[in-house]
Amino acid sequence: METGNIYKQVPDNLSEEISELLVQSKNVKIERIISRGHKSPDSGWYDQDQNEWVVVLKGSASISFENETVVDLKEGDYIDISAHIKHKVTSTSAITETIWLAIFY
Amino acid sequence: METGNIYKQVPDNLSEEISELLVQSKNVKIERIISRGHKSPDSGWYDQDQNEWVVVLKGSASISFENETVVDLKEGDYIDISAHIKHKVTSTSAITETIWLAIFY
Repeated sequence: METGNIYKQVPDNLSEEISELLVQSKNVKIERIISRGHKSPDSGWYDQDQNEWVVVLKGSASISFENETVVDLKEGDYIDISAHIKHKVTSTSAITETIWLAIFY
Repeated sequence: METGNIYKQVPDNLSEEISELLVQSKNVKIERIISRGHKSPDSGWYDQDQNEWVVVLKGSASISFENETVVDLKEGDYIDISAHIKHKVTSTSAITETIWLAIFY
């Protein structure tokens, strides 16, 4: 049985956004993602083959969608993004790390 | 796009443990479970066909396993329970609600 704590073992060096694989099975992937001020490239969109259910557990972030919707996420906020819905992360907190839990399914 | 907050809209009445379905797809189910002092029946075990990755986001809990291992979970602690590993919840905080996020996969 694998155990851990979603808030602990946050690397000091967050010069790059960090994605950690917590679970990988045939049909689902669970990741912890840690950002600090990171955002997606200005041009282009994430266009994913899987659905993504993601929750911000610490920090804050904004996600923009191709249809111009912007969703601001604070602690505890989650969003279910269907496959091939084009989106990008337009901001994450620069003050504290943002810890995401993402389930790709 | 469905959105919500994992910490909000906690019912006042927690006389029964509450399970809320957040995502149901062919291969994965995501639930928010809210306990307050609830535990599994003293006799018998959960014996699930799916793996369960579960994190305690608020409160605390203890899970016991058939092999007599006991795992105490505090805020942020997660555990990955493989299918058919027999287990039960032997306690949850009576002081505050315990909010679990469970992914069955």
